[in-house]
Amino acid sequence: MSPTTARVTSVDTYDIRFPTSRELDGSDAMNPDPDYSAAYVVLRTDAADAPEGHGFAFTIGRGNDVQVAAIEALRGQVLGRSVDALCADPASLYRDLTGDSQLRWLGPEKGVAHMAVGAVVNAVWDLAARRARKPLWRLLADAEPEWLVEQADFRYLTDVLTPGDALDLLRRGRKGADERRARLLERGYPAYTTSPGWLGYDDAKLTRLARRAVADGFTQIKLKVGADLDDDIRRCRTARAAVGPDIRLALDANQRWDVPEAIRWTTALAAFDPYWIEEPTSPDDILGHAAIRRAVAPVKVATGEHAQNRVVVKQLLQAGAIDVLQLDAARVGGVNENLAILLLAARFGVPVCPHAGGVGLCELVQHLAMFDYLAVSGTTDDRVIEYVDHLHEHFLDPVVVRDGHYTAPAAPGFSAALRPESIARYTYPGGTFWAADLAERTRKEQAV
Amino acid sequence: MSPTTARVTSVDTYDIRFPTSRELDGSDAMNPDPDYSAAYVVLRTDAADAPEGHGFAFTIGRGNDVQVAAIEALRGQVLGRSVDALCADPASLYRDLTGDSQLRWLGPEKGVAHMAVGAVVNAVWDLAARRARKPLWRLLADAEPEWLVEQADFRYLTDVLTPGDALDLLRRGRKGADERRARLLERGYPAYTTSPGWLGYDDAKLTRLARRAVADGFTQIKLKVGADLDDDIRRCRTARAAVGPDIRLALDANQRWDVPEAIRWTTALAAFDPYWIEEPTSPDDILGHAAIRRAVAPVKVATGEHAQNRVVVKQLLQAGAIDVLQLDAARVGGVNENLAILLLAARFGVPVCPHAGGVGLCELVQHLAMFDYLAVSGTTDDRVIEYVDHLHEHFLDPVVVRDGHYTAPAAPGFSAALRPESIARYTYPGGTFWAADLAERTRKEQAV
Repeated sequence: MSPTTARVTSVDTYDIRFPTSRELDGSDAMNPDPDYSAAYVVLRTDAADAPEGHGFAFTIGRGNDVQVAAIEALRGQVLGRSVDALCADPASLYRDLTGDSQLRWLGPEKGVAHMAVGAVVNAVWDLAARRARKPLWRLLADAEPEWLVEQADFRYLTDVLTPGDALDLLRRGRKGADERRARLLERGYPAYTTSPGWLGYDDAKLTRLARRAVADGFTQIKLKVGADLDDDIRRCRTARAAVGPDIRLALDANQRWDVPEAIRWTTALAAFDPYWIEEPTSPDDILGHAAIRRAVAPVKVATGEHAQNRVVVKQLLQAGAIDVLQLDAARVGGVNENLAILLLAARFGVPVCPHAGGVGLCELVQHLAMFDYLAVSGTTDDRVIEYVDHLHEHFLDPVVVRDGHYTAPAAPGFSAALRPESIARYTYPGGTFWAADLAERTRKEQAV
Repeated sequence: MSPTTARVTSVDTYDIRFPTSRELDGSDAMNPDPDYSAAYVVLRTDAADAPEGHGFAFTIGRGNDVQVAAIEALRGQVLGRSVDALCADPASLYRDLTGDSQLRWLGPEKGVAHMAVGAVVNAVWDLAARRARKPLWRLLADAEPEWLVEQADFRYLTDVLTPGDALDLLRRGRKGADERRARLLERGYPAYTTSPGWLGYDDAKLTRLARRAVADGFTQIKLKVGADLDDDIRRCRTARAAVGPDIRLALDANQRWDVPEAIRWTTALAAFDPYWIEEPTSPDDILGHAAIRRAVAPVKVATGEHAQNRVVVKQLLQAGAIDVLQLDAARVGGVNENLAILLLAARFGVPVCPHAGGVGLCELVQHLAMFDYLAVSGTTDDRVIEYVDHLHEHFLDPVVVRDGHYTAPAAPGFSAALRPESIARYTYPGGTFWAADLAERTRKEQAV
């Protein structure tokens, strides 16, 4: 691609909220009524081929405006940047955003401030992949190991993973990539489904959806647990009866328990042969996860969707706290930090089974898992991407799951772009859906 | 106090920024040019005696607007609450704010979202202490152990500290409190000073301020390090020469290093007999701090000002990662969470030397340290509160430090209220200081 003088000319943000709480989709022991939301950002440029970069942070409703404000606080660092320079070296922006000495105080590198960095950085990677006319997984898998090492963030990791270690991993990792790519394009990447197991569903719906999941080719399903032990025993029995003994049954407590309670509760459900217990306690409790893992084996311990950054992931691995790392595409500082996280997992030989669902998390994370398969871990053994069949219709390039596998995306970019009509409808509070909803509520209140 | 029907009638927020970057006050290896700021909140009520509750999160400039937005996201949970109920049981609000299922996703319990909870919760404690006509330290020290246990947050802590354990600690802790109170009122609580050691000061200023600190009665000073090793060696030598061998010399790296570098650098400075090395690496790296502590002993390891919540503090103590816990009054979820943190420290026998400085952190944290002395740890041995002589003039009830000791505050409340004229001058960007500053910048730009 010949050099251009193109610049980032605008950084547009959107507060997008979907009214998912009305169907109890997404209900779990900690999150009874989420309205799945995206703090969404579009980088526009004056490039002749007019590509845009799309990114977002996922939230579950209230506070999505705060998340948007945090993205807007980064605008000044992005506006006017050279598109060529950004796409050649996304790490240059990543470092400026995570290193901003004043904004850093708001984290550092965690929560609202860090998710804002992730949204903007992922938008740059979307832009870079569109310009390269490749899906992101392919851009990453085709890249030289030396460049990938420059893109990964090793700060605070060098006691366990140096750039030199990473280069070795990536050089070894790419061997056989051509064969794996052929297999990926043919078969896709294995998925598991959470759709049957939301806490708000009754047993009949659980049974029906669990059977459908098996019929659809999934070999693992997931149940939300943690609100009531008797209910959980009944629901696990129901699910196990529905799917038979050979389907993996994962359990997800969504941080509901203290450490002793996590051990007691998981032990009480062990009779149903759960494959893993996910988020048994606070996502910040590395040593707690390690204690739980020691106590509940052979049930595996999985976490990561709320792991705030690579430093927490490093310690989960160092402490032997997890069997499964559930990387999240939008919780941390974007692709640059997730490159480091994938390398950490490979270094410790722990399988990555990415967290997905929400708004667009399936769309994003498939690229990272496919890159990992082609160029880092080199395997899909014991690796599955979460799949939830919600809200994909709002994306321009939605995931395609067939026979229990994610199909490799073909369109250029990071699959992050929402449909313009969805943005117009679900922008909060001014979009057509919410404006009508507010008018209806006002009418009902006045009628009372 | 007789029951009232008083309610919280408004939750007013202010974006307050002080232009500290112009003097290099507060400069360190990670924060070269902070503008010390407060995302400030006032709870107003319709109570007949018209008390208000003041609280704030501390930030260092950019992003203070995001912090204000996060506080505003909590407004709906506070407005209309009964003042009697809030003051009798601040934990009821604390639990609602930390447990809000949608807002929780923004953390959970970390960063911008959690500091917002801390600001509001601390404002309630300020209100409660004003209504009780006691300084907060006294309200806490006079309280029954059973009530304090109800106020502390034990969630995710019960593997190491149960409410029953805490009750035992508090019952033992109050023995001899009357004598200690008399001593506190007479002597105050020991302080150390960071004012000589900012990275932006030259050697002459360092020497002059270090000597003045000793003359002023301080027995410990602190130096910022971590930007350049040769400079640090020279500055440590200069400081040690200025204060002599008997004054404790603490070093603060403000998260600058990876683990191996922290060990190398601290070892290189060991010749100057540093008392502690503070924030040697990422505040999230519990296992990293433990490794550094093992390697640099007898130099102590101190951290805590960026410990995002009680779960991280629990692990720092469990892992043997720290010699000194630097509790912060405004980083975590307010007094309710800091009660749990003080109890954790007492349980592990680790001294608390609170982080202060910033905007109003000295004002807040003295109350917690004095309560700890009277009712929890029962000692000031090896315990000092940080003191920085900045920005106290903006507070209605500023700290008073005499002969190296904080004087016990006498005024009712949490010492959190800013002077109205300071709010009017330093509100960003509309206050009189910033409006004039902006006009001056515009004039200069137009003149170029």
